[in-house]
Amino acid sequence: MQTYSLKCYKCNVTQNDNSISRIFCEKGCNELLICEDISPMKQDPLQSMRDDEESFSLGEGSTPLIPLNKIGKRLGLEKLFAKLEFMSPTGSFKDRGSSLVINIARKERVAEFVEDSSGNAGASLSAYAGATDIKAHIFVPDSAGKGKLDQISIFGAKLHKIEGPRENSTIAAKDFSKKNNIPYLSHNLSPYFSEGMKSFAYEIYSEFGEVDHIIFPTGNGSLLLGTWRGFIDISENSNLSLPKLHAAQSSIIEPIVAEFSQKKWNFDPSSKTIASGISVSNPPRLIEIVDAIKNSNGSATSSSDNEALIWHEILAKEEGIYSEKTCAFSFATLEKLVKSGIIKKNEKIIIPITGSGLKETT
Amino acid sequence: MQTYSLKCYKCNVTQNDNSISRIFCEKGCNELLICEDISPMKQDPLQSMRDDEESFSLGEGSTPLIPLNKIGKRLGLEKLFAKLEFMSPTGSFKDRGSSLVINIARKERVAEFVEDSSGNAGASLSAYAGATDIKAHIFVPDSAGKGKLDQISIFGAKLHKIEGPRENSTIAAKDFSKKNNIPYLSHNLSPYFSEGMKSFAYEIYSEFGEVDHIIFPTGNGSLLLGTWRGFIDISENSNLSLPKLHAAQSSIIEPIVAEFSQKKWNFDPSSKTIASGISVSNPPRLIEIVDAIKNSNGSATSSSDNEALIWHEILAKEEGIYSEKTCAFSFATLEKLVKSGIIKKNEKIIIPITGSGLKETT
Repeated sequence: MQTYSLKCYKCNVTQNDNSISRIFCEKGCNELLICEDISPMKQDPLQSMRDDEESFSLGEGSTPLIPLNKIGKRLGLEKLFAKLEFMSPTGSFKDRGSSLVINIARKERVAEFVEDSSGNAGASLSAYAGATDIKAHIFVPDSAGKGKLDQISIFGAKLHKIEGPRENSTIAAKDFSKKNNIPYLSHNLSPYFSEGMKSFAYEIYSEFGEVDHIIFPTGNGSLLLGTWRGFIDISENSNLSLPKLHAAQSSIIEPIVAEFSQKKWNFDPSSKTIASGISVSNPPRLIEIVDAIKNSNGSATSSSDNEALIWHEILAKEEGIYSEKTCAFSFATLEKLVKSGIIKKNEKIIIPITGSGLKETT
Repeated sequence: MQTYSLKCYKCNVTQNDNSISRIFCEKGCNELLICEDISPMKQDPLQSMRDDEESFSLGEGSTPLIPLNKIGKRLGLEKLFAKLEFMSPTGSFKDRGSSLVINIARKERVAEFVEDSSGNAGASLSAYAGATDIKAHIFVPDSAGKGKLDQISIFGAKLHKIEGPRENSTIAAKDFSKKNNIPYLSHNLSPYFSEGMKSFAYEIYSEFGEVDHIIFPTGNGSLLLGTWRGFIDISENSNLSLPKLHAAQSSIIEPIVAEFSQKKWNFDPSSKTIASGISVSNPPRLIEIVDAIKNSNGSATSSSDNEALIWHEILAKEEGIYSEKTCAFSFATLEKLVKSGIIKKNEKIIIPITGSGLKETT
């Protein structure tokens, strides 16, 4: 497996402790950490695990990349592709991050951990934890969909249902972690979780070489950030032109769009959106996400739920892909970027289909 | 792509017409047909399609093969593996068959077709049909789960809900096909559908070489039959020892177990089983299935719903795999085959996890 060190995103200081439970800078600046691959040969982290006989896998990664011919034609694009992240062990891209986090936790002999989630990540971490005999405590809002709650319980995790808005689950998870001295391995904060996402970049590069644009439905931004760092790693050993990364959000919850374009936006807790996978009003890695977008010469765009719903239907009916509704915001963004001339006819574009529609059947 | 001819399973006569809509022997014996690969070099049918630029794919096949260490240990087995068929575009192994059927239909410029299904196959064919602009008429019992009905509609198929037991949907589909002169491409009857399943054998062989046992949850038997014919094809060009194929059924609906062991069994239409994916009281290819099992020196075993439910939970909690309940009957069968000495400690065993548990959330 690869060797990693952790570095503060703010003060840039390499940490002494690179264990799985370290999340904030130990130098006191209280900032989040990022993961650096310091192995002699940088590599796809999931491939590196596959090469290691001691590692555990549920078959994550290596998702198909397929052309979207009809949507391409509709928008006048020649090279539009979808990477089918929902074809993952628990039905979402989160399995890339969970796989790395749980493998490292297992090597460090972590016996149990705490996490808070509103769905996909909780189910994903529960699956890997159960299969490797690590006890997972998953804190979720009691209003979460029964399907998601079922999936978390099925894998044997201890489900802690918390009243009130999503933030209450985070508060309760942190409290529980502190009181019981159990590591808090929040997928939103863990540097290793988004490190696992690097594999998305390595797979695209090995299959495709260069790509011009990638459009992510973005909430906490782990896939966008991991992909960016993956391409940076790859570019160190190649003449690769880096892709432009675009964030797609719902106009109801758009902190990244607001920060990117320096416009005012206030969160209205009473508002609802179909973009459940990216309903994050205060993403902890906000600055890091906006930096990655800007460094890539990308963009951030929000769309209405109605605009997304149209694309959700087109994706199913015309391309045979049943995604979670969250993914449809990427297509609404794509349409806008094509209209504004930012994305051009003969450029190569990839959209990750991050989660399965089967998680949201009525 | 490969070249195929069709042959009657009873009179062994090669048909003049090998079009996608041919299902029964044209020589008048009214028997079902099987598909023969008559291309110069026999090959994995899905790989052959991937090599053909004109073919359409949703990313089906090439599913992961992972070790089941804990269940292996529990049963004293050293080499137990699962092939994760639920990591398919529509969440079930049926995508292998749908892909071949729809690609051939597309080459023959079929504009619309009729199919009857109680779930996975209907959703799968609908996805491929919609994406290739073929109109699908899917006949289903009106009692089918809302999740499955939703999935079929989402892909744009015309959903025909039929009152009464499952058989009524078949009758209505055949009627509609005849009256409207629209081909009836039943996945249960189509020789090309189980031909697509051959890819399961080719993938196992290329990754693993020989395998001793494969245990299938068996209803209409398309995966079991396709796998058998795939291994027969492979063995023509190698010294491969053929695997033993075992059918797993629910003791509530066990026509294959009854035919295999020549015991009496009568279908009770009022009885219910959790094995929804294999609730087939009168499989059209019954004799072919039992022949394949016997020729492979395999077996057929039924288990109670309670036995299966225990394994469904073990599979999720200990191995991190959330399957449809139908798959759990394979593990109940495995336990019996180990106890009876038919499967031995150091033999290599594969169990396909045929469908996603996400299709059955409560």
